[in-house]
Amino acid sequence: MVDFESLIAHHAAWLDGSGPESGVVLSSRIRLARNVHEFPFVHRASKKSGEAVYAMVRDEALKSQQCAPAFSADMDELSPLDRRILVERHLISPDFERAAWKRGVIASTDEHLSVMINEEDHLRLQAMVSGFDTGRAWEILNKLDTDLSGRLAYAFSEKYGFLTACPTNVGTGIRVSALIHLPALVITKDIDETLKGITQIGLSVRGFYGEGTEVLGNLFQISNHTTLGKTEEEIIQTINSAIAQLIRFEKRACETLLKDAKAHIEDKIWRAYGILNNARLLTSNEFMSLSSALRMGIMLGIITNISFTSLNQLMILVQPAHLQKFLKHEMEAGERDFFRANIVREHLSMSKKGNA
Amino acid sequence: MVDFESLIAHHAAWLDGSGPESGVVLSSRIRLARNVHEFPFVHRASKKSGEAVYAMVRDEALKSQQCAPAFSADMDELSPLDRRILVERHLISPDFERAAWKRGVIASTDEHLSVMINEEDHLRLQAMVSGFDTGRAWEILNKLDTDLSGRLAYAFSEKYGFLTACPTNVGTGIRVSALIHLPALVITKDIDETLKGITQIGLSVRGFYGEGTEVLGNLFQISNHTTLGKTEEEIIQTINSAIAQLIRFEKRACETLLKDAKAHIEDKIWRAYGILNNARLLTSNEFMSLSSALRMGIMLGIITNISFTSLNQLMILVQPAHLQKFLKHEMEAGERDFFRANIVREHLSMSKKGNA
Repeated sequence: MVDFESLIAHHAAWLDGSGPESGVVLSSRIRLARNVHEFPFVHRASKKSGEAVYAMVRDEALKSQQCAPAFSADMDELSPLDRRILVERHLISPDFERAAWKRGVIASTDEHLSVMINEEDHLRLQAMVSGFDTGRAWEILNKLDTDLSGRLAYAFSEKYGFLTACPTNVGTGIRVSALIHLPALVITKDIDETLKGITQIGLSVRGFYGEGTEVLGNLFQISNHTTLGKTEEEIIQTINSAIAQLIRFEKRACETLLKDAKAHIEDKIWRAYGILNNARLLTSNEFMSLSSALRMGIMLGIITNISFTSLNQLMILVQPAHLQKFLKHEMEAGERDFFRANIVREHLSMSKKGNA
Repeated sequence: MVDFESLIAHHAAWLDGSGPESGVVLSSRIRLARNVHEFPFVHRASKKSGEAVYAMVRDEALKSQQCAPAFSADMDELSPLDRRILVERHLISPDFERAAWKRGVIASTDEHLSVMINEEDHLRLQAMVSGFDTGRAWEILNKLDTDLSGRLAYAFSEKYGFLTACPTNVGTGIRVSALIHLPALVITKDIDETLKGITQIGLSVRGFYGEGTEVLGNLFQISNHTTLGKTEEEIIQTINSAIAQLIRFEKRACETLLKDAKAHIEDKIWRAYGILNNARLLTSNEFMSLSSALRMGIMLGIITNISFTSLNQLMILVQPAHLQKFLKHEMEAGERDFFRANIVREHLSMSKKGNA
């Protein structure tokens, strides 16, 4: 079982701001969809079959050295609040949180690797790493996948590749994505044109929490949706080129802004700094929007006493379930806004002292 | 002649925050309208007659010990920017700034007392003091008036009292006003009802720069408009009762807000603090609005490291003409917003060090 108090007290490695280009690319993520041979897919499985897959996959994943030390969490044994904590940490999907059948997650304690069991597929293996580093994500995920493929008989077709519940995942079963911060392109209004280019080369653009979620704080998830007819390496290469181009575009937009609207940009950044350090009430959305301006300020070298790491940690900590778990009681939205503002002030103040 | 560089470098005594109730009432002001016997009123005077009155009044006012040490300024010899400086310091009226005939001002160097010569009347004597202290204003103004009445033959009728260009000033020629900060009544939306009560007892409500000007930063000027049929003391007493009542209403509204909406009020105050200490661009109007919230914070004991004095001084310093004089060059509004934000940050930061 998971000790949620200690889970929320430590910070996930994939948000530690240490990876390449982590000023623009917060994290790189790869997931693989896998199913166990001769067991019906999750949506067609009987209760008994689902439970059998769950137990088998959980035991084998926990045995794997690749994600050790690991913790496991059976969704049925968790409170709604604890399930929400896992969504907020990006260890499980919102669909997985709400599903009605036997399911659970295994994750390495540093949260680099996780395995959702009985999501849409029997296995959803995920690697998340800091910065623009799909190579490292693929390296650790591939090792886990190879290890598990020796322990479990994957459903595989010579013709199609890995078989999956949804045809869009058939073949490699891979989805590669990056969480990328593009405030300058939003301000210069070049974002729509830029993202149109991204979708035209067959990639998807989503919000912070994945499919169907709102874009908050100028954070975009860029991912592939083709999984068939290309190797994993080719798919990763396509995403890499797109991300590299987005980074160039964003940096160019930053230069334009500093040339044409320096005072306005600095004003926006310092106001965000002033409000985050002083407000007594902060909604999630306002936090995301102000922290986007602050992140841009760190990126441009304007804010020097706060780190990307601090901001990334805060982004997780101030979400509703984390706040309630942290303060050990359920809260209405208004009360959360009060405690969110408190935590932001304390965290930024500690961050500044740490940098002083 | 006035040395404007040294004028703007020192702070007017009437804004030093030292007077009674100066958290709510920034200043008390009394002016007297007087004319010289047997000279036509300003609007009917020939050029020669106007110049004669000007020279005579200026010489006598400068001789008076009541406003010594004094400086004098002939409007014709001032640049438009310097005239604007005098308006921003409330030493002359906007109408006086723009008039086309011979006119000028004498003021004590601490700016407690001033005499506009050839405004609407030959003399407009003014006393401005810190806080809610019409008694002190009347005391120093009365001495100056008595002194001048011995040097100049005032136009006076046994039946009507002092004769003035506009009938609304006939009699005592007195106008008593107070600059009062009512943010809590604005937030609780009780302000309209409250001010309606004020006008019903025969008083006027105006903005920061007097007649016809906008209310900025929740600062209201309350003044009498009756000057006939009552003694100066009765008129002052009427204003005093109204101001005392407004102070009680404002304090009660503060208590209500702290009881019913503490977090929202504290949030508003701390955000203003954060923005004023960090913004890189500030318009006049935004400064007035944010400094109103900060003033409320000092009043409520929430902000303890900034003084009313500092805020009052800033209110004068960041006005357009002061900014341009201070920085020694003409500026577009956008450039002024930049320098205004700089001066606000520096001034607040010095104020905080001074309090530390």
